[in-house]
Parts: sequence; structure tokens; C-alpha cells
Amino acid sequence: MFIVMEPSSSRRDVDRILDVLTGMDAVGYACHGATQRVIEVLEAGAGLDRGRLAGLPAVARVVDEPLGVLGARGGAERETCPVPLGSRAAVGGQRVVVIAGPCSVEDEGRLVEAANAVAAAGAVALRGGVFKPRTSPYSYQGLGARGLEMLGRVREQTGLAVVTEVMCSEHVEPVRAVADVLQVGSRNMHNTPLLKALGEQDRPVLLKRGWSATLEEFLMAAEYIRQAGNPRVILCERGIRTHERYVRNTLALAVVPEVKRVSDLPIIVDPSHGTGRADLVAPMSRAAIACGADGLLIEVHPVPSRAWSDGAQSLDVAAFRELMAGLGPLAAACSRSL
Amino acid sequence: MFIVMEPSSSRRDVDRILDVLTGMDAVGYACHGATQRVIEVLEAGAGLDRGRLAGLPAVARVVDEPLGVLGARGGAERETCPVPLGSRAAVGGQRVVVIAGPCSVEDEGRLVEAANAVAAAGAVALRGGVFKPRTSPYSYQGLGARGLEMLGRVREQTGLAVVTEVMCSEHVEPVRAVADVLQVGSRNMHNTPLLKALGEQDRPVLLKRGWSATLEEFLMAAEYIRQAGNPRVILCERGIRTHERYVRNTLALAVVPEVKRVSDLPIIVDPSHGTGRADLVAPMSRAAIACGADGLLIEVHPVPSRAWSDGAQSLDVAAFRELMAGLGPLAAACSRSL
Amino acid sequence: MFIVMEPSSSRRDVDRILDVLTGMDAVGYACHGATQRVIEVLEAGAGLDRGRLAGLPAVARVVDEPLGVLGARGGAERETCPVPLGSRAAVGGQRVVVIAGPCSVEDEGRLVEAANAVAAAGAVALRGGVFKPRTSPYSYQGLGARGLEMLGRVREQTGLAVVTEVMCSEHVEPVRAVADVLQVGSRNMHNTPLLKALGEQDRPVLLKRGWSATLEEFLMAAEYIRQAGNPRVILCERGIRTHERYVRNTLALAVVPEVKRVSDLPIIVDPSHGTGRADLVAPMSRAAIACGADGLLIEVHPVPSRAWSDGAQSLDVAAFRELMAGLGPLAAACSRSL
Amino acid sequence: MFIVMEPSSSRRDVDRILDVLTGMDAVGYACHGATQRVIEVLEAGAGLDRGRLAGLPAVARVVDEPLGVLGARGGAERETCPVPLGSRAAVGGQRVVVIAGPCSVEDEGRLVEAANAVAAAGAVALRGGVFKPRTSPYSYQGLGARGLEMLGRVREQTGLAVVTEVMCSEHVEPVRAVADVLQVGSRNMHNTPLLKALGEQDRPVLLKRGWSATLEEFLMAAEYIRQAGNPRVILCERGIRTHERYVRNTLALAVVPEVKRVSDLPIIVDPSHGTGRADLVAPMSRAAIACGADGLLIEVHPVPSRAWSDGAQSLDVAAFRELMAGLGPLAAACSRSL
Repeated sequence: MFIVMEPSSSRRDVDRILDVLTGMDAVGYACHGATQRVIEVLEAGAGLDRGRLAGLPAVARVVDEPLGVLGARGGAERETCPVPLGSRAAVGGQRVVVIAGPCSVEDEGRLVEAANAVAAAGAVALRGGVFKPRTSPYSYQGLGARGLEMLGRVREQTGLAVVTEVMCSEHVEPVRAVADVLQVGSRNMHNTPLLKALGEQDRPVLLKRGWSATLEEFLMAAEYIRQAGNPRVILCERGIRTHERYVRNTLALAVVPEVKRVSDLPIIVDPSHGTGRADLVAPMSRAAIACGADGLLIEVHPVPSRAWSDGAQSLDVAAFRELMAGLGPLAAACSRSL
Repeated sequence: MFIVMEPSSSRRDVDRILDVLTGMDAVGYACHGATQRVIEVLEAGAGLDRGRLAGLPAVARVVDEPLGVLGARGGAERETCPVPLGSRAAVGGQRVVVIAGPCSVEDEGRLVEAANAVAAAGAVALRGGVFKPRTSPYSYQGLGARGLEMLGRVREQTGLAVVTEVMCSEHVEPVRAVADVLQVGSRNMHNTPLLKALGEQDRPVLLKRGWSATLEEFLMAAEYIRQAGNPRVILCERGIRTHERYVRNTLALAVVPEVKRVSDLPIIVDPSHGTGRADLVAPMSRAAIACGADGLLIEVHPVPSRAWSDGAQSLDVAAFRELMAGLGPLAAACSRSL
Repeated sequence: MFIVMEPSSSRRDVDRILDVLTGMDAVGYACHGATQRVIEVLEAGAGLDRGRLAGLPAVARVVDEPLGVLGARGGAERETCPVPLGSRAAVGGQRVVVIAGPCSVEDEGRLVEAANAVAAAGAVALRGGVFKPRTSPYSYQGLGARGLEMLGRVREQTGLAVVTEVMCSEHVEPVRAVADVLQVGSRNMHNTPLLKALGEQDRPVLLKRGWSATLEEFLMAAEYIRQAGNPRVILCERGIRTHERYVRNTLALAVVPEVKRVSDLPIIVDPSHGTGRADLVAPMSRAAIACGADGLLIEVHPVPSRAWSDGAQSLDVAAFRELMAGLGPLAAACSRSL
Repeated sequence: MFIVMEPSSSRRDVDRILDVLTGMDAVGYACHGATQRVIEVLEAGAGLDRGRLAGLPAVARVVDEPLGVLGARGGAERETCPVPLGSRAAVGGQRVVVIAGPCSVEDEGRLVEAANAVAAAGAVALRGGVFKPRTSPYSYQGLGARGLEMLGRVREQTGLAVVTEVMCSEHVEPVRAVADVLQVGSRNMHNTPLLKALGEQDRPVLLKRGWSATLEEFLMAAEYIRQAGNPRVILCERGIRTHERYVRNTLALAVVPEVKRVSDLPIIVDPSHGTGRADLVAPMSRAAIACGADGLLIEVHPVPSRAWSDGAQSLDVAAFRELMAGLGPLAAACSRSL
């Protein structure tokens, strides 16, 4: 059970509720977040009087589920609140944005080649990982600092915004220096210390859904960032783990309209990880836009067969260009532009 | 291991291969299907000589997986082969078709009301179940024969094609008399006696994907119908069972472009069962068309709150009309029409 | 919503409730089952008065979920009600029973060999399929009637009870003639016409859990058989479909104690299908007994490498003998015998 | 593709292989782990000659899958290598160990009460979380440093080994000071920076399987710790996420014998998280031991209904005592002791 406080409530209001809880033989835990103050009722016996709690001064309402806490912010209509993607674009507005680039930063020549190609085709941001979460410790772990430098230079040369992954709080400072958006990968969606650290930044965060995360867990992961002070979170659906075998993951697109309904966060789709297959990226990109996604995150590599990771799901430049050409009319039919 | 015979092969050719297998201390099982002859190698020891088998007269090729057998029919490019939906439409051509109507046939007044409404909004066929597969034996099991009569009358009055479910071979004859398409529900996708019975009919079959069926199992269920003699199968994706909770099922749309790639069967999408929620039907209908679906199967009820089954996922008439109005431009952006 | 009637209620009592529902602007559907009478409220508006319904004569109680209907039979303590397994054994009593044999009946020599071996090792029943539900129509479909004759002869010779699968109502009569228990496979757990047909038999039914069935669906499938008049159902857990890859299925053993808690049905476990691997059959057999299973269903083949189906998960005779030898002490530590 | 080097290989040997790869127009990535040196072939064209690579000096073998790398260590028989659990016990030997205690450390009185109770009943270690990974930021996040102090005092008083969770590298030092085993929770199984940090410690690590982790990912997470220098890892199965609803997770016990087969790591089972229900803890504990688990991790709370987290799955002291009493004979029937 959670007691959601009025926006105008103070620490003292919260303390008063905690005292009332004690008097009811209950224990409360107060969270003073950046967006709202909430008290979780940790422990209670027969003396708990929900009706009385709901009626106390400064209490907005009492809810049973974390998602109800989220419900506090917004009301019936939740307009998506755009989040900046570098200085020239934003995610969550009328325009559908495309972020593209290689899975991993490998060498500067290839990175420049990929960046120029995706920019020419209409992407507004470059993706590329330098800290790589890999299943095996024997697999390539990313270029690290050296890769960050490359990203910084390419960013300057191309004007593309840069999106790259952080895996722990130690990565935040160095990545912040070159990236416009800090990405949290699926494997770290539940990494709450990392989410809290990102909540203390002024840089937008791209939060990928965990492989087996529920909708509530996904939204609550975003809430960790927001209640720590950083309101700028972009959600990303990238497929969930199911019994399906012909794809790497099952792209669960219904989450797109559902996020739009219950939240004010923009949401994009990653059809590359969401299918694991280059030949399915185009149709699933189209499906994502048709159901309301605010953007796409697509892996593009100059020579996919030689990519150091995820080659099977990377588009080559020609395929990316062809995909982009087809998205314009589709976006228009959805009252969006590209 | 399967030995796929040449299209021109005879029973005698197959017998000859079976003899060769015996000589290799192996046992073969011959399937003389309507579309092709195939020998499964049931049992074999060290004497099995795959190379020799592949080179024998009348042998097209030797494959390891059932899906490889499927590969026999078609070649690199697999044009979707349209299947008639009544006398006025077909599934799998340039036009995207919409089949709509109530989950269950309840009474004739409501059925007529639903039929007229969906026809006016642009649907080409009416859905409505009279034999209902329900989780509980205490739940409504459908009107049966009486419902079939209603469907027959409404079909005549409206000119809509009728799609309705069969659950066992006993249903086939009576349903055939009034329905243009016989539907196999998700729960029966693996019901091979039913699939074989439908393979002996000249009526198209709408085959819904099982809740936890793999792609291979889905395609092989269609193959049961086809190799028994009925080539006219329409596939239908309707969501799979996963850990997700905010939807009834997880609509796994990547199956649409994948079916297009490996098969010549048309495929439609059921966003009603695929989400279980009326408010998600429109965005997921759009996503389905954008990734290449040949049609939609949508539950529409005059008063969803009073529907005898699946009310939560049924559109009312106004919502269906609005959905249909939006699909035209989208189909056009996908080089299709509605 | 379901209205569960008192055991002593009559058809007239039910009709009276249906009239009351009509007066409340609601529609009821009556199920007169062998075990109880239940009314489903199909449709209702604001006039529905649950409290009044619960208080009407002959009404036992009003519940929201099908599982609540099940709750009618039993009370707090649900002793498992043993089901006969041939004339010499029963499933659900103090003794843990083992049913073993080949996946498919292949030829009589092998069947006799397998039967003698499993009997000698302590199995009380022989399994062996003659109607085979296969993914591909090109795969071996079973010996059919010829296999049934073999099973009949082996049953007479060995005194073993025989368990074999039926896939449609047409199979029921011929299988009934030679089998002590009629098996419903996982693919047919949702096949309600088949369940109803088996409910009209006096022969016990072994009902395997569907690949992706919930607990409620599993119990309700059994209820289809019971409310049609046949109370003798043995449940069988055989693994569910998940993201796991090193096993064919994920054996979900918690269902065993849960079935014991909510139902009076015996439950056995099939570790062969539940893992798909011969080397995991022994440890999972032990786990099944330790958490309370009433028996095991195990695939045993004289020469697994030459089995016509499921060879990878079949034990050879020596491995089965070794497994059985170890189960005795384990059963004793669980206050059971073998 | 991975090139596994001989145990006696040097950095120079690895450099030589990297040069050979360059000559083959391929790119290699070298991992110099504590347990073995491995080269991943990141990128290669037609010039790659696998046979030649396998035959080069200092190369042990060439494998395709990360799990094959693991295969390097051990050979056909993999005796489980016991890992110390405090000074008095070890996990992975003949004795089955039980670790028990509250989900969260709440206050010292309760902690002492729980510790004394579980020790008296036969547990060898105390569990209790002070850094809590919670779905919602509004939920209780754990006592942190204050809780660690409590754990330290209780450890001294009771002589119980202490197991508690770390969520990021910042936690490692303070937790190390009071805990005998550092736990990695399911949400952090994929947190490779944390795994690497723990690999630099001399303290055993209890690694819980991720909710949707494959077996390979689970073993590779352990490998991150081991190749960074810490060989002492205890695996823990705690249930996976599936479509099942009556349990919080699906306990996938087949992983126990499979881990025993492919690895030398001990593995324990957490039936509390694995079911989410106190009443299923006892039967699933029994199942775990019967299939070969080296121990159990069980949540016990003096007053479960007042627990600050996971009350529904916590045993009270009496239930834990009863469970423990029953495990002795079961362990004996499995040739183990408690």
C-alpha cells in the first residue's frame, strides 16, 4: 500500500503521516522523490485504517500498486512530453526520429563511414557501444575510453547526436562528456544503483526494456530515474524472451500504445534486437511507427558480415537507405513526419 | 531425416526407396500427400548413406527438418497465393481484408445488427462462433446448430462471407453448409485429426496459431491440411502466451513477414485476442497492416459490455467504424488497398 | 460470475434462478453437470444483485472464477481420491506407481521386450502410443488399429495395465477395448469435444497438462471430463514451454503440491517429455516423488537410438532398472512405497 | 568462434595466434583470464582456416560456443568443487546446507530472533538483505550500512555465516567486512561490471540465476567472476519467469542436475522466490534435494505477516523447524546428510 502525498506537501506533512501510521501499529517508509513524496506502508496489523489515511491533510490518495503511484502524475490525458535528442531534435513530438549506427564502435574509419551514411539517409542520432554487456567474458567487451573519444570526434564532425550505453555509475562521467543520451541496456534495466546515478544527471536517458520485464517494472525503472531528479527518460521496446525460436526476441509492440496511455514518456522501438535478423528490421520498423512509436533504434554497419557483434541483425547502408525511403509515406499516413 | 521425392515420382518410386533403406538397415515411413511424397527415415544405424539416398532416381532432396520439407514447394520467391473469402473477396492479394463480428453468436437480432454495421464500415466477412472452446465446462458453450442457422440467414441477407469455428470432425459437415471459411481455433491448432478432416474439404480454412506454437508447428499444421488435399489455408496470428500481464496475449507480429518469406500462404492478424483489450485493437491493427498482414480478424459487438464472451476485447460499432476509416490511408502507404 | 447450486438442487431450482436473473435484466447459462449444477451469468447490467442471488434457495454460493466453482467439491482438506490403474493398482494412494514403455508401439517383438523389462523392474503399467500427434504430417503417425491389437496381446501376456493415447472421439471405442487408461496428450488438453466424449466413458483418463496451460485451465480440462460423468481423472505434469533451451520443456513441479492442495485428483509426472533428455529423467523422477507426485510416466525403449520417436528422451532397460532401484528408499523417506 | 589456449600458454603464444589471424584477414580479441586464455575471432572472411588454427602450438582447441570454452576446464567427470560457507561449512560436499533468514534486515531484535531460530533448527548460515533491489523507487530500499552493522553483530553472537546481497561495486567493500558470502541477485546476474568486481575478491559469491537467463548465460555469469580471479562461486536456481500465474516464478529444477553435469560449481535452490508462496516451500525444498541440490536458501521471518518484504513467501519459525525435521531422512535417502 502506498500513500501518495499532494504535490504541495512537505517533509513535515510526511512525518505527521508516519506518526499516524505508528499510532495504527503500522510502519511507513517515506520516499521524498523529485517528482512526488510517497509513503509505503511496510507493515501493518488490524489497526490500519485506510479510509482515515486517505482523508488526512496533504494526502492525495492511497493506492495498492506501484503503478497507481505513477498514476498520480497526469490525469486522464497524458500528452507525451518530448525529450531532447541532441540540440536539433527531440523524441516524442510530431516527428518520428531514427537513431542508427553500429552495435559496437570498432574503429574510427568504420564509425565515420556509418555515421555519414545514416546521417545522409535521415537519421538524427548515432548509436554505437563502447562498453559492451556480453554473455561471455571471453567475448569482446568494447573499446571503452578509446571508443568514447572516437564518438566525440564523429559527433563534432557530423553534427549527429550520440547515444551510447553506460553499464555502471563509473561510466556515467566519461560517457556524459561525449554523449547526448545515456543508454541503459536491457540487462541493466533492473540495476537500480545505476538508475539512481542517472537520475542525478541532466542528460536524457534511453532506457531499454528488460528481456522479461513486465510493463510495471519497465515504468518503475524509469521512475527511479525521474524521482531521483532527471525527468528526461526515453523508453525503448526491444523484444522480450519467449518460446519463439526463429527470432532472437519477440517484439512486443502493444507496449507502445499502452505506454502512451499510462505515461507521458516517449517510447521508441529497436527492431534490430527485437528480431535479431536484418531481413525483419524493415517490416517491424514499419509496424512500430504504425502503432505510434516515437522513433526507431536501428543497427547499421558498413559491412555487417564483418561486424564485431550483432552482424546478423545489422542493416548495410543500402538496406538502411531503402528502409528510410519507405518510412516517410508511412509516417505521413500516421499523421507524423520523419 | 526426410527424403523429399520429385513431383513426378510414383508410389513405385517410393517403394524402391523404402527397399534401399531396408538394405541400409534403416526403416522408412512413406507419406503420400496431395502436394508431395515424402519418406521419413524412422530408424537407422551406421549403414545409412545420405549421399547415396540423395542421388537416387525420383529423389528431389534429403533434409533434416520438417521445415525443409516445406521448402520443397516454391523456390526462392514465394508469391502469396490468394485464398477466396466468399465469392467477392480473397485473402492474400493487393487488398487488405477485414473480417469482423461478435465473438459468439448470441441472438439473431444482435447478429444482424453487428453484420450490417461491419458491412457498412467495410468488412467483407462476418465472424461469429457457435461452437465455443471455453476454459470451463460451466461457461457458455455456444448456440450450436441454432446459431449456424442464424449465420446462414444473415449470410444470405447481407452478402457477407461467413467465418466460423469447427472444433471436431463432427462439426465439419454442418458448418460447411453455411460458412465460407472454416476456422480452426488456437486450442485446436495441434488437433491433427481435425486438420486431416479439413484437408478433405474444398472449403478454405482459417488456421489460428496456437498459444505457444513455434513457427514450424504453425506451418506444419497448415501442411496437414494441404497434404490431405486442401490447398486453401489462411494463417492467423493471434498472440502467444508470455510473462506479460497487461495484455491477454503478446501479439508476435514478426511472424507476418516471416510467413511471407518462407511460405505462399496468406496471413491475417487478430488484434482482439492478440491483446484482449478493445483500446489496443486499433493501434495493433495498424501495426499488422504495416508489417504486411493480408487482413484482420476483429471482434465487434453492438454492446460489448453485454457480450456473452470476450466483451473486454470487443469494439463497439462506432469504434470499429473509426478504426476502418483510418486504415485506408495506412494501407495506401503500404501499397495496399482496403 | 458463477452461481454454484447446492448438491441437492434440481433442474427446477435452476430454472427459478434463471427467471430471477431475467428479472434482474441479466442472462444466465445453466450447466447441469454430473458433479454439480452451475449457472454462469453471461450478461448483466446494473440490476444484478449478487447478494440476493447468493441468498436464494438452493444456491450454495456465488463465485467469480471457474476455479471457485471447483472449490465447491471438497472443503478445506482434499484427500486425493485414488483412481484405478488396471485391476491391481491405483494412482493416488500410499503407493507411488510407475507407468513405463516406449513412446510409440513399433513392432510386437520390441513391445513385448519393453513390457517384460519394465514389469520386471517394478512398473505396474505399460505405456505405448499407436495414435501419434506429430508436428509434421510427413512424420510417422502411429500403427493405429494394428498397434492396438499388439497392446491387447501384450496386456494379456504380462498382466500390465495399458495406457495409450486417444486423439479424437473416433479413437475412444477401439482404444477402450484394449486400454485400462485412456490418455489425453498435451496437444489435446484443450480439445473439449474429446474431453466430453471421455466424460461419457467408465474408463480412467490420464490427462496431460498443455504446454502453456495455466493451472486453472488444467483443472478445468479435468472438470470437463468429470462433469460429463467420469470422475476418474489422473493429471500429469509434463513440462511447459519457456525460454529454456537445454531441455525440451521446463518441468514445473510446483504444480504437484498445488494440485494436491486445491483438488482431490491424483497427479503423476512425465520426466521424459518434461526434459526431453534421458540423462535428466532419473534426477527429475526423484524430484517429482519428493514433492508428492503419485506416480511417474517414463519412456523406456529396448534400443533408444533406434526408437521411431523420442529416442533422445527414452531410457534403455538398464537405466530404467537402475532408476527404479533408487526410487524405493526415496519413496520410503517420503512415507510412500513403490 | 573461440580459440581456447593450453593452460601452459603465455601471452606471447596468444600474440602469435593474433598475428596468424591477421594473416588470415581476421581479427581476434584476447582474454587473459585467471583460469584460461581465450581468443575470440571477432571478424573473419574466407581466409579463415579453422583446421590450421586448431593445430597451432599452444592451442588447446577451437569451439563455436561460449559453453564450449567452459568445457575446457574439467573433462568427462566434473566433481563439484566445494565452496566454503563461513569457517564451519561448505557448499558442494556430501552435506546439504541450509541458509535461512529474513528477506530484509528490519531491526536488530527481529534479526536476532530469526538467527537464533534458524540456527537452532539446523541452518548453517543467515541470509538477510540490507541493499534491496525493488521494482518501485517508492518501496523500501533496505537499511544499508546500519543493517550491515546489525548483521556483523549477529554473526558474532550466533556463529552463523552471513550471506547478503551487493548491488554495485560500491557495496563490495562494506559488505565484505561483515559477510561470509556476497550475493548477486537475479536482477544483477547480467551486471558484468559487478561480476568483474566480485572476481577480484577472495570472498565466495552466491550467484542467483536471472529471471529469464538461459543456462549458458547463467554459467557465463559465473565465468565472469572466475576468470577475473575468484574461483569460489555458488550458483542458485530461484525460478524463471513464465506464463504461470499461481506461483511468483517457475522453479526450473532440471538446471540442478544439468549444472552438475557440465560444471564443477555447487548449486543451491531458493524455493522461497522460486514459488513466492510459503506453503510451497517445503515440497519444493524436498524436490530440490532429491534432484541433487547442494543446499537451500529459505526465507524465514518471526512474523511473516509483518515482514517488510516478501512476507507471503516467508516461513515462520515453526514451519521452518518442521521443514528441517523432514529433510534429514530425505537427504539420507539421497546419500547426503543435512
